[in-house]
Amino acid sequence: MTNGKLILLRHGQSKWNESNQFTGWVDVDLTEKGEVEAKRGGELLVEADLLPGVVYTSLLRRAIRTANIALNHADRHWIPVIRDWRLNERHYGALQGLNKAETKDKYGDEQFMAWRRSYDTPPPELADDAEYSQSDDVRYADLDTVPRTECLKDVVERFIPYYEQEILPRAKRGETVLIAAHGNSLRALVKHLDNISDEDIAALNIPTGIPLIYELDAEGTVVNPGGTYLDPEAAQAGAAAVAAQGGK
Amino acid sequence: MTNGKLILLRHGQSKWNESNQFTGWVDVDLTEKGEVEAKRGGELLVEADLLPGVVYTSLLRRAIRTANIALNHADRHWIPVIRDWRLNERHYGALQGLNKAETKDKYGDEQFMAWRRSYDTPPPELADDAEYSQSDDVRYADLDTVPRTECLKDVVERFIPYYEQEILPRAKRGETVLIAAHGNSLRALVKHLDNISDEDIAALNIPTGIPLIYELDAEGTVVNPGGTYLDPEAAQAGAAAVAAQGGK
Repeated sequence: MTNGKLILLRHGQSKWNESNQFTGWVDVDLTEKGEVEAKRGGELLVEADLLPGVVYTSLLRRAIRTANIALNHADRHWIPVIRDWRLNERHYGALQGLNKAETKDKYGDEQFMAWRRSYDTPPPELADDAEYSQSDDVRYADLDTVPRTECLKDVVERFIPYYEQEILPRAKRGETVLIAAHGNSLRALVKHLDNISDEDIAALNIPTGIPLIYELDAEGTVVNPGGTYLDPEAAQAGAAAVAAQGGK
Repeated sequence: MTNGKLILLRHGQSKWNESNQFTGWVDVDLTEKGEVEAKRGGELLVEADLLPGVVYTSLLRRAIRTANIALNHADRHWIPVIRDWRLNERHYGALQGLNKAETKDKYGDEQFMAWRRSYDTPPPELADDAEYSQSDDVRYADLDTVPRTECLKDVVERFIPYYEQEILPRAKRGETVLIAAHGNSLRALVKHLDNISDEDIAALNIPTGIPLIYELDAEGTVVNPGGTYLDPEAAQAGAAAVAAQGGK
């Protein structure tokens, strides 16, 4: 049997990536550059002959549109689509909407990096009546509680059980699955796939718009630990740019 | 309980609408005008406060992109998506790819209108090795037989049972369902909803990009026979334009 494949695709540049703001669950759109990145993502899939049979997306526009654009350019616009909030970006709590450079200046490097990269320390909670709260967002009406903040551990705890129940069985059956999601939901998945420690995951950054492939055998074991980027050079540059965020 | 609502949305102008070619199952893209129509469709939904909770699309790019664009502009990009070939346009057989005006000139008005509008006379079959055949298209690999031509009756016979099983129960439960599809698959549905005779359906034309609303009660009975266009003036002009096709 053919090995299954997971195609991890972080959305292209969003308007708040561009303006250096913490985004989280705020539903900002792609920039034109982000649309180009999404298109390039689709072209890379065609070049690699890696054509997904199903796509999973978060409930956020930047991931949904990235999937739509990439699949349209890969001539796979017609495949089944499954959307779930568990693929959403980490909720960034009270930081949502704040400028990253200003936040770093105000709170200092240590606090800034703790909020961005510590495994289990969430930012302060976002008030339900705050401008960028999702407490009344109809798309989350079925959740018992809409998050007010999340650390990466929270994302692991909501996303990985969903992954194991919904996505992993497809990979074990040899399917090719596109997962169009976010910096931190994909970090959660990579942490799981590569069994990365709570400490070491801090150093892992995922670039926008470049497909990252994991090949899984019928037992669900990763055949290529660390995954394989379809455009390794661009991926390296992109990951370095993510790591440098907070600069001006 | 609130009545359920079906929102029928024919895709915006496609490249072959523009060039006056029979399209059928050929997977042509929207024109820029078609994208604008799709956006306007989404805006009309917002203005009418008619926000779908789920969307059904065909497997064809022009309907899928119309749904994507309309939903993005209605802030409903995140709703569940279900795609099925049964919503596809009528397969136009050997006419696929031919210019409508040239076909009319070559075969005469009577034959031309019979192919376009007779209920149960399909055009000649398209050969499997023809340029615009879908016989090897991977998206239809699960079908027992990929159509080589269809009349409207064939579309009714594939689409209405699917509608009754998958979509109607949602309407009975009070859901609002967007159906992003095609001139003839939507004519098949309207024929069923309004109980239009095999003869009278010939005169019914559906314009591109203008949402047509049917309201259904808990028994599935249509509350507003004939349906309600969200922009009736534009709908009338659009339907007249469809009726006039075959001109030069």
